[in-house]
This record gives sequence, structure tokens and C-alpha cells, in this order.
Amino acid sequence: MLTLYYAVNTCSLATHIALEDARAPYKLHAVDFAKSEQQSPDYLKINPKGRVPALVTPRGILTETPAMLAFVAQSFPEAMLAPLNNALEFAELQSFTSYLCSTVHVAHAHRVRGYRWAYEATSFADMQRKVPEAVGACFDLIETRMLKGPWVMGQNYTIADPYLFTIAQWLEADGVNLERIPRVIEHRERMLSRSSVRRAIATERD
Amino acid sequence: MLTLYYAVNTCSLATHIALEDARAPYKLHAVDFAKSEQQSPDYLKINPKGRVPALVTPRGILTETPAMLAFVAQSFPEAMLAPLNNALEFAELQSFTSYLCSTVHVAHAHRVRGYRWAYEATSFADMQRKVPEAVGACFDLIETRMLKGPWVMGQNYTIADPYLFTIAQWLEADGVNLERIPRVIEHRERMLSRSSVRRAIATERD
Repeated sequence: MLTLYYAVNTCSLATHIALEDARAPYKLHAVDFAKSEQQSPDYLKINPKGRVPALVTPRGILTETPAMLAFVAQSFPEAMLAPLNNALEFAELQSFTSYLCSTVHVAHAHRVRGYRWAYEATSFADMQRKVPEAVGACFDLIETRMLKGPWVMGQNYTIADPYLFTIAQWLEADGVNLERIPRVIEHRERMLSRSSVRRAIATERD
Repeated sequence: MLTLYYAVNTCSLATHIALEDARAPYKLHAVDFAKSEQQSPDYLKINPKGRVPALVTPRGILTETPAMLAFVAQSFPEAMLAPLNNALEFAELQSFTSYLCSTVHVAHAHRVRGYRWAYEATSFADMQRKVPEAVGACFDLIETRMLKGPWVMGQNYTIADPYLFTIAQWLEADGVNLERIPRVIEHRERMLSRSSVRRAIATERD
């Protein structure tokens, strides 16, 4: 049995959806950010980084969304969530998830997590002002160069799809002009047609 | 044949070393940051993100270091650069490379790339002031919780090692107190005992 430590409105939704897609046996454990539970001694034993997600497996604890997504795909190969027998295609998929974690999520995080990288309130405000442009530039690239359609990698749905969907939840709050990225918005809507996605969202809202 | 587009003093060194470790057939192509060649129309055809590294393969172009490192390990399995037949161990390895790209490299990048996330010179200066603390906190975690020793993943050298080594090249410039992280420094020295590492460094300096 797997246990996913998650928080609402965070990138843990990507792994949550992938577990649903894989029909994996798993439990959920909510981490309450309002109570700073991610910094509690008990949670830091699970993830010393003090963040979500974390995936507790019978043989060890995993963190970092790209690694967890690849783990789900490899552990449940019958769900066909990644091109596991083609190193180049698998790398193309991982290039996409790596871009999301290292560039897109980071650009977004400057809206409310500026304290990670600066000290002054004036800097935080400056960072917030730039979020629409920085996140927008990432999504322009996704729209025009990366999202193959109908799914991220083309005809086959993969673990890249719930991850893009998750980060695309934040577009409005990040101030990105949605008219610039119609294909991303179509992808977001397409995802909502999947029962796995609707189940994951409904469960987190309960 | 593979072609690695690289620049000196960037994270492309990680993939360069991994290609040496794998005894892969490859060519190098230097991208001159002093001339902003990474933003030239020719280079943007290779990598529309305008960054290094990029790996041109006979069947497609790869970007993002974690994806490229896993590709090298999977394409040259005889070099045994990753636990390819164990999904959990492979995910633990990928968790490490993902942390380096999404958190450690990002913390470092605020020293000279503040313009990615803010507009004002005062914000850039504030970000620079925080780099020793932010990068230092990452390396404290690596030192105490993540680096198993003697190599990142324990007894077996993997693609995580050249990546850690590469980012650890920047510790002095990032203002991190090296006395806090003796195991990381030992790892950096251990890496220099490998001929693959010395070859990659010497070639880039030529």
C-alpha cells in the first residue's frame, strides 16, 4: 500500500491523479498548511524538506513530483502512463516534467513564496509583479512548442498530463492572459473529462 | 552520434561527465554565453528555451539535465549509472536530481539571474544577499539527510554524482560556509579522482 501526503491547491494533485489513473492501491493523508503542519516534527520525519508531496511506500519514502510520477508509471506498467520501453521518448516526457518543476512551478512560486529567495517586502512585491510575465512566458512556450496535443506527448496520455493540468490550475491567480494559450486551456478542459481527474479533485475538496 | 551543446561553468558539465562515464560516442558544441549565443536564432532552433544543455540525438533533441542524465543511463546500461531495474531506487535517484534542478540550482540562480523573477535592481541585490543562506540550507540537507556516501546513492556511483559535483562547483561563489558540509566537500574531491571527471573539465577549459 502507498500513502500520499498531499495538500489542497499544491502540486501533489499531479501524483494524486496519476495514482487514480494507475488504479493503484493507496491512501491519502492531508497535510494542513493552514496549521503549518508541513513544518511539524512528525511531518519532517517523513519529508525533511517540509513540503508536499511525499509518497510513503513499503520500501522507502519518495519526494519530488517528477520522480514520483515516473515511479507510478513504472510500478503500474499496465496503465501505460509513460513510454517505458523507449529511452528517448521517456526522456522527452521527463524533459517536460523537469521543466514544470524547475522553471514553471518556480516562476509561479515567486507570487507567494518570495521569502525563499529574498528578505525584503519590497522584493516580494516586485516578484509578485513579474509573475504574470514569467509564468506567461513559460506557458507561451508550452502552448507553441511543447504541448503536442491532444495530450502533452501527443496521442498517448502520460504522467505529464496531470502535472501540466495541476500547474495550469494556478493560471488565473498568476495573472496569465488565457487568450494567449487556447491549447493549454483546451487541455485543462480535456483533463476534466477524465473520471480519474474528477475523483482526485472531489476527494481533495471533501 | 550524440552532440552536447554546453557552456563552461553551467550545469551542462553534469551531462558531459555522464557521457564520459558511459563511454558514449559524442561530440561537443560550445555555446558562447559571452556573445549571448544561447539566444541566437540558430541556437533557439535547437533549444527554444535559450539555455544549455541540449543533447542532439539521431531521433530528437533533449533538454533538462535530469531527463538527459536518465537518458544517458538508460541508453548505455552497461555503464551501470542508475538502478534501472528497480523502480523505487530509480525514483530515489530521480528525487535527488529533481531536487538539484528545482531547488538547489534555482537557489543558486538568484545570485546572477534575478531578472528572471523581478524587475528592480534593489530586488536583485536583496536576492544576492540571501543566496548564501538559501543555497546553504539546501546543502545542509544534502550533507545530513541525502548524500549517503561514498557516492550520492551509497556504494554505487550514479548519474546523481556528476550533477551534485557540478552544482557544488558554485559553493564558494555562492558564499556557502564549506566547514558546514564536509561530506559534500569530500564528495567533490572524490569526484576529481575519476578520470571521466578530469577529462570533461579539461576539455571544457581548452
